Amino acid sequence: MRTRVAVGIDIGGTNSVLGLVDEQGACLAESSVDTVPEAGPESLVERLVSAVRELHAPLAGTCEIAGVGIGAPNANYYTGTVEHPPNLGWKGVTPFVALVRRHVDVPVVITNDANAAALGELRFGAARGMRDVIVITLGTGLGSGIIANGELIYGVDGFAGEIGHVTVQPDGRECGCGRRGCLETYASATGICRTVFELLSTSRAESELRDVPFRKLTGRLISAAAHRGDPIALAAFEHTGKILGTTLASTVAHTAPEAIILFGGLADAGELIFEPTRRWLEAHVLKLYRGHVKILPSGLPGGNSAVLGAAALGWTELLKAR
Amino acid sequence: MRTRVAVGIDIGGTNSVLGLVDEQGACLAESSVDTVPEAGPESLVERLVSAVRELHAPLAGTCEIAGVGIGAPNANYYTGTVEHPPNLGWKGVTPFVALVRRHVDVPVVITNDANAAALGELRFGAARGMRDVIVITLGTGLGSGIIANGELIYGVDGFAGEIGHVTVQPDGRECGCGRRGCLETYASATGICRTVFELLSTSRAESELRDVPFRKLTGRLISAAAHRGDPIALAAFEHTGKILGTTLASTVAHTAPEAIILFGGLADAGELIFEPTRRWLEAHVLKLYRGHVKILPSGLPGGNSAVLGAAALGWTELLKAR
Repeated sequence: MRTRVAVGIDIGGTNSVLGLVDEQGACLAESSVDTVPEAGPESLVERLVSAVRELHAPLAGTCEIAGVGIGAPNANYYTGTVEHPPNLGWKGVTPFVALVRRHVDVPVVITNDANAAALGELRFGAARGMRDVIVITLGTGLGSGIIANGELIYGVDGFAGEIGHVTVQPDGRECGCGRRGCLETYASATGICRTVFELLSTSRAESELRDVPFRKLTGRLISAAAHRGDPIALAAFEHTGKILGTTLASTVAHTAPEAIILFGGLADAGELIFEPTRRWLEAHVLKLYRGHVKILPSGLPGGNSAVLGAAALGWTELLKAR
Repeated sequence: MRTRVAVGIDIGGTNSVLGLVDEQGACLAESSVDTVPEAGPESLVERLVSAVRELHAPLAGTCEIAGVGIGAPNANYYTGTVEHPPNLGWKGVTPFVALVRRHVDVPVVITNDANAAALGELRFGAARGMRDVIVITLGTGLGSGIIANGELIYGVDGFAGEIGHVTVQPDGRECGCGRRGCLETYASATGICRTVFELLSTSRAESELRDVPFRKLTGRLISAAAHRGDPIALAAFEHTGKILGTTLASTVAHTAPEAIILFGGLADAGELIFEPTRRWLEAHVLKLYRGHVKILPSGLPGGNSAVLGAAALGWTELLKAR
C-alpha cells in the first residue's frame, strides 16, 4: 500500500512553497515557485499544479496524494475563495479552490495562513494534544488562529481570528484596515519598527538605530541592536510585549486557552519578545487564569512550517471525512 | 412511553428556581426555593431535591426525569464544582454535582449562569439554528457564553467566556475582581449606575436622578428616567452602549459570531441600550464584519429563562451521550 500524503501549499507575496506531508507530519519532498501575483491566479495555479506533479513523479510508486491544503492571505475556508488579498493585488473574489480542482481530483481546502499555522501546531507542533490554544503570527501584520474544543474557529463567515484588529489604542496608529489603533500596528514586525521611530522621537537616548532610515528598518535589525544592549531597541521590545501581553490578557478572557503560541518573524527574537509578553499578560490577566496560560514558541521546524500548516489543514479535512 | 424531561435549576443569591423541561423547551412545571446560602450547600441541595420530587410526583405517570442541568455562579463544568461564589459566600470549592448525585441517579451537569443562558438561547431561544453566537448577560455584572462551531466554549479549565473582565479602560473603575477598568464596571446594571454618578459629577444638566442616593439607584430607575427624557439618564445609556459596542467590536474579531444576544436586567431597557450598542459596534468593527453581526434580544420567555437555560445544559449533555 502506498503512503497517503497531503499536499501543503503556502502562497506568499513573492514565493509560494509546497510539499508532500504524511499523516505524522514528515515532509517527504518540497519545492517552491515564484508567485508572480501580477500574472493572475490562473497562471499561479497552473505553475503550482506542475510543481506538485514534478514533486510527486519520482515518488508515485510509494506515495499517493490524498488531498490538498492551501494557506493564502484573505482565504475563506467556507467558500474556497481568496478575497481582495492586499499583497497579491488580485481584485475581487478569486475562486481559488475551484481553479485548483480543475486540475486535481482530490479534496482541496483553503484558509488563511494564520489558521493554517494554528492547525499545523495542533497536529504536528507545540499544540499537540491540546484542545484550546491560540496561535499568533507576528509577521508584517498580526494574524491569529483560535482553536477551541479541539477545532479551529472559522466563525459564521469564515473570518474569525482577526485579533490583529482588536483596538488597543483609540485614535492610535493608522492601520491598513482603514481604522486606527489596531493591535497589529504595535505588535508585528512593522509595529515594532513604528515603535522604534516613536521612541527615537520621544527619547534622547543614544541608539545605533538613529542611523537607519524608516524604509530600511526591520525586526531583525532591532533584535540585533537589542542583543548589543541598545536602549531604544530594548525599550521597543518592552513596549511591544506590554501591548501584546495586556491585549492577550483580554483574549484569554474569551476562550481560556491552555497556551498561546507566538509564531513568525518577530517571534524569532526569542525572549526579547516572549519575556515581556509573558510578564504583562500575567500582570493583567484575571486572577483565575493567572499562571495557567503558557506562552510558547512554535513547535514546527522553521524551514517548512508554512507547508506543514497547509498540509495539516488538508489532513484535518481528510480525517474529518473518514 | 413517558415524556423525558430535564430538570433545570438556576441558583441565585436569594432564590433558586427549578423546572421540568421537555426536549422542545416546554416547561411542564416549575417552582422555587429560598437559597439561604448561609445554611450551606448541603442544605440547599436537600431542599432542591425535595422540591424536584414534589414537582415530579403528580407527573410521575407521564414524565420521566432523564437528567439535571444546573446554572450557578462560579460553577465549573469540567469538575462539577462551585468555586468561591461571591454572592453565596461559600468558602473554597464545593463539589456541587457530587452532592446532588448522592440523591439522584441520572446525569447531573453544572455551569455558570451565562453559559446556561447561552445554551438556552441556542436550543430554545433566539440562537436556534445558529452555530456561532455570543450571549451577554447584563445583570449585576456582565457574564458571557460563547458558542462557536455549534458548541459552548469552556476553555482549558472551564472558565472561558469572562468578557466582563476584558479591560476597557486602563486604570479605570475598580472591579470586584481586584483589577481596574473591566467591561462590567461600565456595561452592567451596576456599571450604568456608576456612569450616572460620574455624569452627575461632571455635568450641570438637570436630572431627576440628582434626588436618588447611590444605594437606591437601579437600572430600572435610570430606564424610567430616560423614557421621560432625562438628559443624564439618556447620556448614561449612550455611554454604556458606546463602551459595550466598541468592546464587542473586538470580541467579534475573535470568533466572528452571527449574532450577539443581550440578556438580563439591563437588556430589558430595550432600544435604550440596543440602539447605541449596535451603532458603536458598527462604527468600530473591522470592515469585513460590518453589517454582518446581529444584536438581538433574548428569545426565551422572561419568566423562566434561567430554568430553560439550565435545562438546555441538561439536554445538551443527554443528547451528546446518545
